[in-house]
Amino acid sequence: MLVLRTVLRKAFVLSIAMITTSVMADDRDELLSFIDGRYEETADLAQNLWELAEVGYQETRSSELLQSELRAAGFTVEAGVAGIPTAFQASFGSGGPVIGILAEFDALPGINQDAVPQRSPIPGKGAGHACGHNLFGAGSTGAAIAVAHWLEQTGRPGTVRLYGTPAEEGGSGKVYMVRAGLFDDVDAVVHWHPSDQNAAEASTTLANRSAKFRFRGVSAHAAGAPEKARSALDGVEAFNNMVNLMREHVPQQTRIHYVITSGGVAPNVVPDFAEVFYYVRHPEAESVREIWTRLEAAAKGAAMGTGTQVDWEIIHGNHPVLVNDVLARMMDEKLRQVGGVQYNSSEQAFAEQIYTTLNKPGLPLGSEQEVQPFEKSLGYGSTDVGDVSMVVPTVGLNTATWVPGTSAHSWQSTAASGMTIGFKGAQVAAKAMSLAVIEMLQNEQLLRDARAEFDAWRGDDFVYEALLGDRPPPLDYRN
Amino acid sequence: MLVLRTVLRKAFVLSIAMITTSVMADDRDELLSFIDGRYEETADLAQNLWELAEVGYQETRSSELLQSELRAAGFTVEAGVAGIPTAFQASFGSGGPVIGILAEFDALPGINQDAVPQRSPIPGKGAGHACGHNLFGAGSTGAAIAVAHWLEQTGRPGTVRLYGTPAEEGGSGKVYMVRAGLFDDVDAVVHWHPSDQNAAEASTTLANRSAKFRFRGVSAHAAGAPEKARSALDGVEAFNNMVNLMREHVPQQTRIHYVITSGGVAPNVVPDFAEVFYYVRHPEAESVREIWTRLEAAAKGAAMGTGTQVDWEIIHGNHPVLVNDVLARMMDEKLRQVGGVQYNSSEQAFAEQIYTTLNKPGLPLGSEQEVQPFEKSLGYGSTDVGDVSMVVPTVGLNTATWVPGTSAHSWQSTAASGMTIGFKGAQVAAKAMSLAVIEMLQNEQLLRDARAEFDAWRGDDFVYEALLGDRPPPLDYRN
Amino acid sequence: MLVLRTVLRKAFVLSIAMITTSVMADDRDELLSFIDGRYEETADLAQNLWELAEVGYQETRSSELLQSELRAAGFTVEAGVAGIPTAFQASFGSGGPVIGILAEFDALPGINQDAVPQRSPIPGKGAGHACGHNLFGAGSTGAAIAVAHWLEQTGRPGTVRLYGTPAEEGGSGKVYMVRAGLFDDVDAVVHWHPSDQNAAEASTTLANRSAKFRFRGVSAHAAGAPEKARSALDGVEAFNNMVNLMREHVPQQTRIHYVITSGGVAPNVVPDFAEVFYYVRHPEAESVREIWTRLEAAAKGAAMGTGTQVDWEIIHGNHPVLVNDVLARMMDEKLRQVGGVQYNSSEQAFAEQIYTTLNKPGLPLGSEQEVQPFEKSLGYGSTDVGDVSMVVPTVGLNTATWVPGTSAHSWQSTAASGMTIGFKGAQVAAKAMSLAVIEMLQNEQLLRDARAEFDAWRGDDFVYEALLGDRPPPLDYRN
Amino acid sequence: MLVLRTVLRKAFVLSIAMITTSVMADDRDELLSFIDGRYEETADLAQNLWELAEVGYQETRSSELLQSELRAAGFTVEAGVAGIPTAFQASFGSGGPVIGILAEFDALPGINQDAVPQRSPIPGKGAGHACGHNLFGAGSTGAAIAVAHWLEQTGRPGTVRLYGTPAEEGGSGKVYMVRAGLFDDVDAVVHWHPSDQNAAEASTTLANRSAKFRFRGVSAHAAGAPEKARSALDGVEAFNNMVNLMREHVPQQTRIHYVITSGGVAPNVVPDFAEVFYYVRHPEAESVREIWTRLEAAAKGAAMGTGTQVDWEIIHGNHPVLVNDVLARMMDEKLRQVGGVQYNSSEQAFAEQIYTTLNKPGLPLGSEQEVQPFEKSLGYGSTDVGDVSMVVPTVGLNTATWVPGTSAHSWQSTAASGMTIGFKGAQVAAKAMSLAVIEMLQNEQLLRDARAEFDAWRGDDFVYEALLGDRPPPLDYRN
Repeated sequence: MLVLRTVLRKAFVLSIAMITTSVMADDRDELLSFIDGRYEETADLAQNLWELAEVGYQETRSSELLQSELRAAGFTVEAGVAGIPTAFQASFGSGGPVIGILAEFDALPGINQDAVPQRSPIPGKGAGHACGHNLFGAGSTGAAIAVAHWLEQTGRPGTVRLYGTPAEEGGSGKVYMVRAGLFDDVDAVVHWHPSDQNAAEASTTLANRSAKFRFRGVSAHAAGAPEKARSALDGVEAFNNMVNLMREHVPQQTRIHYVITSGGVAPNVVPDFAEVFYYVRHPEAESVREIWTRLEAAAKGAAMGTGTQVDWEIIHGNHPVLVNDVLARMMDEKLRQVGGVQYNSSEQAFAEQIYTTLNKPGLPLGSEQEVQPFEKSLGYGSTDVGDVSMVVPTVGLNTATWVPGTSAHSWQSTAASGMTIGFKGAQVAAKAMSLAVIEMLQNEQLLRDARAEFDAWRGDDFVYEALLGDRPPPLDYRN
Repeated sequence: MLVLRTVLRKAFVLSIAMITTSVMADDRDELLSFIDGRYEETADLAQNLWELAEVGYQETRSSELLQSELRAAGFTVEAGVAGIPTAFQASFGSGGPVIGILAEFDALPGINQDAVPQRSPIPGKGAGHACGHNLFGAGSTGAAIAVAHWLEQTGRPGTVRLYGTPAEEGGSGKVYMVRAGLFDDVDAVVHWHPSDQNAAEASTTLANRSAKFRFRGVSAHAAGAPEKARSALDGVEAFNNMVNLMREHVPQQTRIHYVITSGGVAPNVVPDFAEVFYYVRHPEAESVREIWTRLEAAAKGAAMGTGTQVDWEIIHGNHPVLVNDVLARMMDEKLRQVGGVQYNSSEQAFAEQIYTTLNKPGLPLGSEQEVQPFEKSLGYGSTDVGDVSMVVPTVGLNTATWVPGTSAHSWQSTAASGMTIGFKGAQVAAKAMSLAVIEMLQNEQLLRDARAEFDAWRGDDFVYEALLGDRPPPLDYRN
Repeated sequence: MLVLRTVLRKAFVLSIAMITTSVMADDRDELLSFIDGRYEETADLAQNLWELAEVGYQETRSSELLQSELRAAGFTVEAGVAGIPTAFQASFGSGGPVIGILAEFDALPGINQDAVPQRSPIPGKGAGHACGHNLFGAGSTGAAIAVAHWLEQTGRPGTVRLYGTPAEEGGSGKVYMVRAGLFDDVDAVVHWHPSDQNAAEASTTLANRSAKFRFRGVSAHAAGAPEKARSALDGVEAFNNMVNLMREHVPQQTRIHYVITSGGVAPNVVPDFAEVFYYVRHPEAESVREIWTRLEAAAKGAAMGTGTQVDWEIIHGNHPVLVNDVLARMMDEKLRQVGGVQYNSSEQAFAEQIYTTLNKPGLPLGSEQEVQPFEKSLGYGSTDVGDVSMVVPTVGLNTATWVPGTSAHSWQSTAASGMTIGFKGAQVAAKAMSLAVIEMLQNEQLLRDARAEFDAWRGDDFVYEALLGDRPPPLDYRN
Repeated sequence: MLVLRTVLRKAFVLSIAMITTSVMADDRDELLSFIDGRYEETADLAQNLWELAEVGYQETRSSELLQSELRAAGFTVEAGVAGIPTAFQASFGSGGPVIGILAEFDALPGINQDAVPQRSPIPGKGAGHACGHNLFGAGSTGAAIAVAHWLEQTGRPGTVRLYGTPAEEGGSGKVYMVRAGLFDDVDAVVHWHPSDQNAAEASTTLANRSAKFRFRGVSAHAAGAPEKARSALDGVEAFNNMVNLMREHVPQQTRIHYVITSGGVAPNVVPDFAEVFYYVRHPEAESVREIWTRLEAAAKGAAMGTGTQVDWEIIHGNHPVLVNDVLARMMDEKLRQVGGVQYNSSEQAFAEQIYTTLNKPGLPLGSEQEVQPFEKSLGYGSTDVGDVSMVVPTVGLNTATWVPGTSAHSWQSTAASGMTIGFKGAQVAAKAMSLAVIEMLQNEQLLRDARAEFDAWRGDDFVYEALLGDRPPPLDYRN
């Protein structure tokens, strides 16, 4: 027997840090009341974004809606940042600390659903808020305005800055904003995401990079002169074959997946163009880079071996989310102070009807009222929040904007995102985030601890480099 | 050394049959004059079809145009035959012999071009007559009306029947008409095709069969739970791989080609559906059937081996064209009596300008005036005329409707098909075909010889079976 | 962003069990002295096995040597058990508890090396003890005899039973012995393995199963009549291709690997036979079985799709090693009482010379004197000890029989296994094992705790089934 | 319909050349008697070679036997030519014309059979004359000696030169001899081959080239660290996959075939070496070269795409046989003068017994007495006679040395090659060849016509280049 063993890697060291809560109970109550008082504004905003359902980099009116709201609340808005017309930053207050709040607002193409508890597509609507980014945008805006209100009331130093971040879905909008240095002066960042449960987010994600590989060959009539042709689809298939062979020889946490986005037009014509769209993911950005180099070699080898040419366009790329344990535990505490979502009777009826349509829901109805136990986890998705988390300590949470058991990107999530269940979830998020932000604005030790953990993880020689390189934002990727 | 040899297969036995021309010179002159006199009607018809550019099985107005013309000339029209709304047959005369004339009129999707000698797409036009079937329809109609005129004038027995045959391009329209028995009482069939040269057609084609193979798997998030998924695209790629291995083990004249018509939607979702569109061709229908059985086994094996399901839909299928030497030589004689196409000065200018855009044209300008030497050839295309030729002795010709050197399915062929060069070519075809038809109506020996050759080739136990089986016409294949 | 996360699986619960040492210091000293006094016998035995170097299931003389030694010490020997001529069990004592000791003794084909510190193959020798199973056999025999001595001296009840287990290397010898029920009355089993370090073994292994898949096609001259052939190698390549596609869709801890053991004879003959040898591994036997079913489907699908036939022969299969924490900690304690290996000056010189030939050794010279920290680990190898551990609580250790940094299956491990460094390591193993055995013979609570842990892991409805099914021992697998 | 056609390529122009027979009937009778009188010597030689059965480039004793016989007959022998120890040339006579006779004598590995009419391997014999090259060597030597006798008797000018050509089977022995210029002064070459029928040879062959492609990767334990490995077998499989894709895009007469000669050693070790052995063939050498370039690109692309390295060794390469119609018709005439093979009663019994073992024999018993009709054919095998035929007009024949219906490379061909049926066939060959040679020695016009045809085919700018390049003879290719 060959002796082969791996000593079990130590799981996260669960540092049981003492969280000193410095927010006074009075401040907290005031803040929560303020947010409750702005429910209609937040709900209207969420509703409007839901109806617009603009897709990545085309969120012109959605972005403008958020900006208007913030301007009206006294924020200074800088629009069109990082070379992206729909990206913006809106600041309030002065001096440090500077705390950022992320706000997404792009919709998903190819899905649409009315805000009703049975499958009901809206004719002619090409996109929908199946990931609840309308709530994300409205809730974060609500939180920012509440913090501004607190800053004004208390006269304390500090700045709250809301980042309007477009095109999260496959567009990596935040990466361009990080690359442009927009987070360089920020002390910490807060974000959230719609979900079917309430929980402080302590989940990592996978680094990823995607590209469209385009093969070009020589066309000819497939029956009359196939020997004169060089099939671009051969290039794609040879490429895929080598990648599938490669699967045995990459670290097991790697994920590589592809779809053939152009596989020829008509069988009687040898294709002179074919395209395959790849993702590569791994828990570590450096591994993505190493595997990517091999992917490129496979593409070039396939072109060489099939008499075709290949080039590729990086489409997007995200760093993994770096979980900050200090901040995550603080967020858990704040969320527990806020609590979950309470349905009224019509919401309860809506939820019950939705629940009957779910496939093996993992949570029971009623769990929307609870906050899940704090738990570290390994996530296998990817998000451009990762890049933010690589340049500034970042913390997030999920709230139950969807009926328990609902998956993202479903008609059920689209429906709930367009009605009061979603809006109430956004309020929970706004409350927990604003509590977290004012904690950070007052608690220097907390920020120091968070930074120390952050610095230790990154190491001394860390240099941020976007995984999507120096490409400009793909403003037309949804055309 | 292993001794391996194949005695050279005897090429076509060139039976030097004596063609006894029985058409009187007077009749001939009369007929050619009649056709010349109807130039405007034929040109208008060709022009109108060109502008309509209706695609396969959707040629409602084109079919109606042809029917109107024929009805006006005294033909009895039966529309909607063989279960196809746009298929029809139009008869004139009575008693035998019965001679059929084929008329195609479908356009090609994805190509459009104005009738000018430089690249000039017509905005918003989704299809074009890049294969000149507008000329085919108008020319054949002209021929049929001329023959009717001759029958009326001479009072001779015999019937001329024009077949309006839709969806030649990938739709195998004629196959359904053959399958429905519409040619059972016919003694011979005449057809033609637009081309860049004038020649009696003595070229075989390949039998073919096509199908869309649809694989269905199980979807899952490609990063989060790939082990729960079964990729439909894996099924397609495994299928293709086995077919590519099979290429070594089929007769060398076989042609197998495919395009991937659905290769997944987004890389982050393991595809639960994928589709590949295959053609199989071989000079003999029986070989196509044998290879097809192996193709199906590969599809089923791929599904079995990748944990997916597969089914397939036969899209079309054509028999090879059976060349009738007796009739082909007769047609060569008739075409030589008619001669080629004469350009006027503006047509000459048009032709010269087109010629500068051609890639290595195989024929010189001026060759449109000539008739090419009679020559047998092996063709590697496929056409549904093949099925007609399997049930009745069939003969065809090409005429120079396009500038010499022009390829079919090009913008140059589309342009010429929409102006007088194309219309003049159609007149040449109408003349040669009508001469051929009245020859056959009078020359019993010729028909007996043609039938004898036909019977000898098919053998005693021949039974016609469509290669596309018993599927109904795919009336929606162009949707 | 799609929320996808996996809560970190709890690592082994490190139950900090109190090990009550019940072996009296006097007993221990007596036992260690006894083993020291038998050094020459153990060394001679190890030397003789090393020279014989008999491969799996052909270890006739090696097995006989061990049996003789045990008979001479008063053991009752039953030879030829489980249908294997070279398998045996040798018992001493009466009543319970019954403690088993495993002894391997097969050599590896294709490697040979003299017992010198530089590369020096022995001409004409076809196999060698590159995995040190000569030491394994001799050391375990020494331990068993020492325990027998103790039983005799103390007159205590209890039985020690040495299992002579052939063909560990790819032959799964122990599996047939487990399947035959030879361990049914045993309370615990002790084993060890030669290594480059001293450590109680707390490493799991992977379950595995292997088979040779044999494809049969139809041969023909590859240039003269390839269309008449069906290539068996096509079958193998299509099979492999589908397995490589499958890699994306199995749990990430899965291991699938293959070599093509027969890929055709001459290029000018289409192969009618081809063979590929596969291993499938996973931490859990049940997963191996599930993936295996898919592997079989891929093989059948490949045969179907390439017009070939396939059958397969399971070659071997092992369960994962079930680590018993209670016993492993006890073994760690015993090993620490014995200590490591002390080189004399010539051994030191030998070791230094070997060390210069190693590629990036992971341990320093001198570490042979130490005992490594007790640590749980995930192993990626496989061993038939796994099956034993599934039916009876099992514990093992490694000792430094090879120079630190030496890999198994190397000429360096072969060399050290044939001289005093190896023999001294075997003595360390004999001492620790015999201490462990007499602990278990006296300490009822320990056995109860071990059994409780064992029962808890297996669950109530556990039924042992060999992964290699009901195939007979492949007695000729080394021919 | 896309018009795609190929005008039937004109088959060989059957030039009906008048063959003026100039050999006097007396001369002919004398010569045939002389050969009859040497039957025992020829049979003994054939028998001795059959028993030696030496494989390619190792035919030391076989070559020496032939040389001795020729020296004894007055030939001047030059041994070890072209860098090949077993190659030789033996000349007799002086001045021109110079006529060459080829003599092969290598056996095939892996086949052996006693000279009896039922399957009966000879134990311990590793090779056999399954292609009858023992007869080839003996028969050609007999012909050369007969011509020498005639030259001596007549005192005419002219030289006969026997070429001892080793390693025809996969070794391309003659190519090195051609490359060395050994045929530069020769006017025509005569050869023959054992067969199951008598026929002047007018069959072309395919040009071919072969190579072993060797991939090198990085090894690692396949379960423990597959991500560190780069599988050489992946390289081979990716290469093969791209070649299989390429099959659609080569001229249909191309033949590409391969076997995997090294596919890894053990599944648990990722292979760092793998080898695939390829042949490429096509009727034209230039096409082989073009396709070969693409094959190399596929190999390099596969290495690039799988992280491996590849190199390759050309193993052999032959030009196609250029049939000389003038000489082939002359040879047909000579063979008809000689007639076929007559069996005695024991040979008849042997033949009948063999015949029962044949699978669908293509010829009846008794046909060994006939000469087949003269017929041009396309052959799909390859032989190094091709290279000779590219530098000098060459003509051959087959004789019925094997029972009608027998395939080459079978036990039946081996058996007949070792007994009188084979020896009688060799005599027929010796007679026809010597008649042909003395015809050419006397008939200047014949040689001029042959040369004119030869020059016309090659064209003015023809330069001979060996398809195996400048590699030295692979003297060890049978080790």
